[in-house]
Amino acid sequence: MILTVTLNTALDITYTVDALTPHTSHRVDRVGERPGGKGLNVARVLAALGHESVVTGFVGGSVGTVLRELIAPLPPRDALVPIEGSTRRTVAVVDAATGDTTQLNEAGPTVTPTEWTAFLAAYETLLRDADAVALCGSLPPGIHVGAYAELVRRARAAGVPTLLDTSGEPLRRGIAARPDLAKPNADELARLTGSREPLRAARDARRRGAHAVVASLGPEGLLAATPDGIWQAAPPAPVLGNPTGAGDSVVAALLAGLVEGLPWPDRLARAVALSAATVLAPAAGEFDPAAYEELLPRVTVTEEATAA
Amino acid sequence: MILTVTLNTALDITYTVDALTPHTSHRVDRVGERPGGKGLNVARVLAALGHESVVTGFVGGSVGTVLRELIAPLPPRDALVPIEGSTRRTVAVVDAATGDTTQLNEAGPTVTPTEWTAFLAAYETLLRDADAVALCGSLPPGIHVGAYAELVRRARAAGVPTLLDTSGEPLRRGIAARPDLAKPNADELARLTGSREPLRAARDARRRGAHAVVASLGPEGLLAATPDGIWQAAPPAPVLGNPTGAGDSVVAALLAGLVEGLPWPDRLARAVALSAATVLAPAAGEFDPAAYEELLPRVTVTEEATAA
Repeated sequence: MILTVTLNTALDITYTVDALTPHTSHRVDRVGERPGGKGLNVARVLAALGHESVVTGFVGGSVGTVLRELIAPLPPRDALVPIEGSTRRTVAVVDAATGDTTQLNEAGPTVTPTEWTAFLAAYETLLRDADAVALCGSLPPGIHVGAYAELVRRARAAGVPTLLDTSGEPLRRGIAARPDLAKPNADELARLTGSREPLRAARDARRRGAHAVVASLGPEGLLAATPDGIWQAAPPAPVLGNPTGAGDSVVAALLAGLVEGLPWPDRLARAVALSAATVLAPAAGEFDPAAYEELLPRVTVTEEATAA
Repeated sequence: MILTVTLNTALDITYTVDALTPHTSHRVDRVGERPGGKGLNVARVLAALGHESVVTGFVGGSVGTVLRELIAPLPPRDALVPIEGSTRRTVAVVDAATGDTTQLNEAGPTVTPTEWTAFLAAYETLLRDADAVALCGSLPPGIHVGAYAELVRRARAAGVPTLLDTSGEPLRRGIAARPDLAKPNADELARLTGSREPLRAARDARRRGAHAVVASLGPEGLLAATPDGIWQAAPPAPVLGNPTGAGDSVVAALLAGLVEGLPWPDRLARAVALSAATVLAPAAGEFDPAAYEELLPRVTVTEEATAA
């Protein structure tokens, strides 16, 4: 199975309103609720791709109870670790006419040292059956900034490859612990390396410790700097739609390609097609399977002449 | 005891952010949660004034569970009726620097006819021990627009005086059922009667059925049209602060004055002082007891020469 870690899970609430006008009162026309946090989304896409997936991280309080109720009927297995604090909410306020979204993100519960220790024990047990592990998203308050670095080291000790998808200092520390793959977007890569030139920045990230780096460049596709070479992968044409979850689909496709032992060009083609099929799907975070099949053979993967 | 009815209870969530900017992402710095719905607030103020108070209405789902947990340690007794649907949330987004607030209000759960029948049975039982009843706030989906009218009639049959504090069509229908007291604000009164002239509109509302009408005129105080006369009551000077809950304090003071059998000028003086002391309190919906005592003798109550 593939394990995904979401230390700061969330209940994602969507409010549809006519138009958000600051300092006025709004009646919410539609309320949506879904399980949130990058690793949970990645696990759902993995399950849709036919991979057994297990989600872990923290869950607590009444919001956590709702989160578990929403996860229960889904394919990923719930191996979340209970905590005293309450799981956070995120609220996305969507303007009905334009689809423009205003995001409000709670910080999350404070995790105690005892709870972190309990998580590490659960993580070690889960690693025994894991073919790969994805470490996803922000850290809740109370978790030390080197947490992902610690999880990368423990996975390597257990012989399980790791994919790291986070930002800021947790990304910097995590990369130094030498994960198998880091998947920053262009902004995260620039903050990490100081370079806005993706190829230079991806190589720099590899020198900092990541075995391979796949940078998502938005509509332009992906850039991969790996021990086997450097590739650019791009969709046949820019796709219009809701980009929510596109990054999580990239992570899921890369993990699936890793455990299936696919060559890099095939992994990247799948990741680009799945990402585009996610943007095209009407529901945020879902992907359109027909669009995926149609796009897959049309993704262009170009090897860069320069050696890594 | 004094009974307050809140058919559309809420979990009031407050998010403090730097400044709300539509179509961007915000980190929420502080999260507050409190029991919401006008009748719940009125009952808390009544308890603070030394009156035994009981809250009823509907509660359900995981949000309802949180609401009951928040009510449990407070003085008002919880006599809420469980339903299948989930209690709504309201989200107030407060800009940290200015205090400006953007409000997002969920509509609330759909109440079934069976649940409404169960509520009516509980209401009849509660009326037996009630000295007065306040009917407060909006109606959740599924509740017929004449619901407050029905509750007014049942209270009268039980010999319990009623105060009605709602708006729109439920107010219009409720007033026609002849409540002892209606407390619209100036906007609600204008929508009901078509007149923006408060004295004319308050008299019109009496002709429509309300035994007495107390209109809240914001910083200018209150206007009361009653069988005993017409009064204006005003604070000694305009007060600056957070007006959230000021209207609920007016309702609480009027109910307390009613069950204590105070003359109208005394009821109005208390209502104005309590409202101003609520605006002055740092926490939304609370009142400052020292400010209340200080303001009470300084409220001016003027009888209008015109007969009702």
